[in-house]
Amino acid sequence: MVVPDETIAGLLLDSAARIVLLVLDGLGGLAREPGGPTELEAAVTPNLDRLAREGTCGLIEPVGAGVTPGSGPGHLALFGYDPLRYTVGRGVLSALGIGFDLRPGDVAARGNFATLDDDGVVTDRRAGRLASAIGAELAELLDGIELGDARLFVRPVKEHRFVLVLRGDGLSAALADTDPQRTGVRPKKPEPLADDAGATARLVERFVEEARRRLHGREAATGVLLRGFATLPDWPGVRERFGLRAVALADYPMYRGVARLVGMEVPEHGEGLDAAVTALAHLWDDFDFFFVHVKHTDSAGEDGDFDRRVALLEEADAVVPRLLDLGPDVLVVTGDHSTPAVLGRHSWHPVPALLWAATARADGADGFGERQCRGGGLGSRFPAVELLPLALAHAGRLTKFGA
Amino acid sequence: MVVPDETIAGLLLDSAARIVLLVLDGLGGLAREPGGPTELEAAVTPNLDRLAREGTCGLIEPVGAGVTPGSGPGHLALFGYDPLRYTVGRGVLSALGIGFDLRPGDVAARGNFATLDDDGVVTDRRAGRLASAIGAELAELLDGIELGDARLFVRPVKEHRFVLVLRGDGLSAALADTDPQRTGVRPKKPEPLADDAGATARLVERFVEEARRRLHGREAATGVLLRGFATLPDWPGVRERFGLRAVALADYPMYRGVARLVGMEVPEHGEGLDAAVTALAHLWDDFDFFFVHVKHTDSAGEDGDFDRRVALLEEADAVVPRLLDLGPDVLVVTGDHSTPAVLGRHSWHPVPALLWAATARADGADGFGERQCRGGGLGSRFPAVELLPLALAHAGRLTKFGA
Repeated sequence: MVVPDETIAGLLLDSAARIVLLVLDGLGGLAREPGGPTELEAAVTPNLDRLAREGTCGLIEPVGAGVTPGSGPGHLALFGYDPLRYTVGRGVLSALGIGFDLRPGDVAARGNFATLDDDGVVTDRRAGRLASAIGAELAELLDGIELGDARLFVRPVKEHRFVLVLRGDGLSAALADTDPQRTGVRPKKPEPLADDAGATARLVERFVEEARRRLHGREAATGVLLRGFATLPDWPGVRERFGLRAVALADYPMYRGVARLVGMEVPEHGEGLDAAVTALAHLWDDFDFFFVHVKHTDSAGEDGDFDRRVALLEEADAVVPRLLDLGPDVLVVTGDHSTPAVLGRHSWHPVPALLWAATARADGADGFGERQCRGGGLGSRFPAVELLPLALAHAGRLTKFGA
Repeated sequence: MVVPDETIAGLLLDSAARIVLLVLDGLGGLAREPGGPTELEAAVTPNLDRLAREGTCGLIEPVGAGVTPGSGPGHLALFGYDPLRYTVGRGVLSALGIGFDLRPGDVAARGNFATLDDDGVVTDRRAGRLASAIGAELAELLDGIELGDARLFVRPVKEHRFVLVLRGDGLSAALADTDPQRTGVRPKKPEPLADDAGATARLVERFVEEARRRLHGREAATGVLLRGFATLPDWPGVRERFGLRAVALADYPMYRGVARLVGMEVPEHGEGLDAAVTALAHLWDDFDFFFVHVKHTDSAGEDGDFDRRVALLEEADAVVPRLLDLGPDVLVVTGDHSTPAVLGRHSWHPVPALLWAATARADGADGFGERQCRGGGLGSRFPAVELLPLALAHAGRLTKFGA
């Protein structure tokens, strides 16, 4: 049962106990053939197996039954933030995903380069999924547009996708999408959805018109479509909610951005897992909570490469002794969602999770895999947001509830 | 974790994937002797066993811990409607249960024929549980009562029970029960519970008085008691909530009625499971969701007939290959509640459930039974309302949540 935020906040103890959260992105998998092992079951992971034997295991659902988590919601759940309650606008997630330094008050939106005919009617919402290099060139072209006092940023994402950010005083993200979500019609106007959004709506309209002017005659794309206007959320951080001084060791912008959203420090460090663990060791005395992110296990799943996923899981396993040498009080190993290689995409399947601590009640698992986790003490389909309170408890960071 | 309706609605994809829900009414059972098998464990069900081996299993709780579901709530949960939130008045369930063609605005109530003494005091709330034939005769007697502009229907249910339906303009179901729930007192007046219910209350009062007049001098019953005034609920259907064109293949009025409440088509078809599957095959191209209901597994449980339940489960098993031949993307087999023969009634025990799909993560079950479901990946006591979102996910009908 998920305990309300304010209850956990009322139980926090001063403590120097340290928690490490190792996230193997897209960890959960599926068997390649009936009766066969999943990627994690196939991988030779003696160190994770030991943690599973000594700790307690289960399978998490990051969002809920049947829901395939995006990376943002998947990580928020692991950080103890219910992703159905702590929602982030799409524009913000896109900006975080490319590492844009979004600031409070900035309005961010997702953009598509699109094809419009001479009458301004959308004929292709994705401009033929133009090449990323072309997208970058067009983004640069629009980045120069000036809108009076407001600053404007246009940054390429991938193919036909870009991010628009407006920076200035008194901007509002309460704007309707201009993307009509179908062809054969004109883009919509950026309608204000709140009383104070009129000025921002007019700025966006000017941007859209000027973009169309600058793209005129281009072969690649002749207009833009915008959706998911959003500002940075103003959430209580992990310090306030869980009493944790937290740091993220993550290479990729999206995960660094989401960590920043919940108040983690996000230092630069060299690329790769070994560099992340080296950086972590240097920061050991300054923090209580260490989030370490491994990206490639997910990428291999998205590529449909079962064997590479197995190899990457074995690589991640090899780093576990270095983490244990630091003497964490609690070590949690899990993923933000499943990315089975046989599906080649994120999925809704529950994700293996283990919690290792001196106080863990071992539950008879003989290794770390979907099968063992299904029979583990944490449950075969438990809410991922429960992991953080459990980690706090095993770290001795929560006092008794009631006398 | 149960995901809110609006979240699921926001994730729906266009899809032609088909889901079959086979409900074996009252499926869950209990062992006849300590250590023995339940009905389902005793039954030889090679086809269901195969589905369990290839799919994922668990035990559902239709309403919640310790709650014995009626047929209405039990089915609503399987259709993805939380029975604690989507409540149906008793009068409506009774009317649906006898196949009465209830229309929007109709007010329905449950009635008892009762014994009142000469002073109008209730001496037997069920008139000695009079024979159904007598009840039918008395219902016909009262069906003729005229109430000005409003039409009135009195239909027998079983023994002393009947259904009263009022049809007319501006009727209200906000009326208190007239059934005092004990003997030695007079029936209550049908008090209006809302400002606009006065006129309906007076109509009901006139019906009660006229019924007493017509029953005067009868040996079988001398008055009526009414409770559970209700109108048809106005719920979003499965098309709106889940993007499903759904059809029910069910013989019995109650199940046809509940299916209609959530917007399913309910065609006529020949009696029995084979006829239902034949009808289903003919409708295969026209729908996405097929609810097939098997009644007798419950009836045998209510009769306390363990062996007949075993035989009926084996009969149901034999139809599975015909369902698989149609090529469903997802096949769910479960029940709406338990009806253990040793208890002879509905019970609160969790109900076996299996979900078969190409994307299911097999969980090592060696057959379909309470024991195997307990160790399955869906959980040993999970909310039945989670089944439908899970089926949508396995059918590829839900997109990713968040970026």
